[in-house]
Amino acid sequence: MDFSSKLLENAVHEMAQLPGIGKRTALRLVLHLLRQPEEQTTHLAKALVDLKTEVKFCKNCHNISDFDLCEICANPNREKSLVCVVEDIRDVMAIENTSQYRGLYHVLGGKISPMDGVGPNQLNITTLIDKVKREEVTEIIFALSSTMEGDTTNFYIYKQLEDYKITTSTIARGIGVGDELEYADEVTLGRSILNRVPFENSLKS
Amino acid sequence: MDFSSKLLENAVHEMAQLPGIGKRTALRLVLHLLRQPEEQTTHLAKALVDLKTEVKFCKNCHNISDFDLCEICANPNREKSLVCVVEDIRDVMAIENTSQYRGLYHVLGGKISPMDGVGPNQLNITTLIDKVKREEVTEIIFALSSTMEGDTTNFYIYKQLEDYKITTSTIARGIGVGDELEYADEVTLGRSILNRVPFENSLKS
Repeated sequence: MDFSSKLLENAVHEMAQLPGIGKRTALRLVLHLLRQPEEQTTHLAKALVDLKTEVKFCKNCHNISDFDLCEICANPNREKSLVCVVEDIRDVMAIENTSQYRGLYHVLGGKISPMDGVGPNQLNITTLIDKVKREEVTEIIFALSSTMEGDTTNFYIYKQLEDYKITTSTIARGIGVGDELEYADEVTLGRSILNRVPFENSLKS
Repeated sequence: MDFSSKLLENAVHEMAQLPGIGKRTALRLVLHLLRQPEEQTTHLAKALVDLKTEVKFCKNCHNISDFDLCEICANPNREKSLVCVVEDIRDVMAIENTSQYRGLYHVLGGKISPMDGVGPNQLNITTLIDKVKREEVTEIIFALSSTMEGDTTNFYIYKQLEDYKITTSTIARGIGVGDELEYADEVTLGRSILNRVPFENSLKS
């Protein structure tokens, strides 16, 4: 693209660094900001820089938090011996939205992915093992997405925990509530038959 | 959405002000920035604020420019008596990419749209009329998109210019080069028959 202004070109270039934002979309967003009051741009810029420079992570579960301990870890009503292992804060938010989970989380911050240069040391795995060593945990629920990276990460952690007396589980895979069988993929449908549950369980909401 | 951090919530809120960016996408973009080196966030923030505070518009055609006169208006080889009226810089870039146009532009900065509170006074229309009054212009090409707002704007400007001896034209509407007739809408196909051109013209690239 041939811009008439270096300032514009630079803004579009930086905006297009964001994932899923191409040059055309970046230009549309930047031109939108140009038409809006100056505050919108300064507020956006300040919010991003503030977050990046002042962000804290919960020292127990590594979730993003404004305090040393996140709201969930600090809540005395949560079951501290039950830990759900997730990839990032979006998974925490998704599970919290269900209101079905009363334990704590452990945010890994990613999945093991040699292709992207992410090894076990880049993830918050040792602190999870330490929790188990200190006998704070009785059950770990793996809730990573079931991709190759997710399965690798699950298995890596599982192997580290073999010598400790804790229960490990993964969230149930199966046909989504309200979904039609005929559109489900074979792997999911197969697993949902293998891991069938007592009928009475389906009566609970 | 229930965020565990005010800083995060604020960044997502500001990001979601951009057009076409919902809360979920905003969260994804913000989390991406959190994982990148701090420079990426500061560069993005600085580029946006710099553009917003230092942006200049060409005093002749109102295009975004780093100088008082944009490169196109400052180019002695462009035909100064031919002016193409467009909505914004994206249209200028699109037409420049064709390498078929040697005249100047006039960037309106929008279209007349009472629904969005945009009247003729918010657009760069008087400076266009002034150019005609000063007899700098012999032909005006309307190149706004053919929506109701575009047509209204074209017609408003056309009426203002009635008393002056200049040629006005609009860009040709028709079937796109390489497109199939059967998929074209009736209005476009109808216009392309009414406004048919001598066969020899189609032999020029």
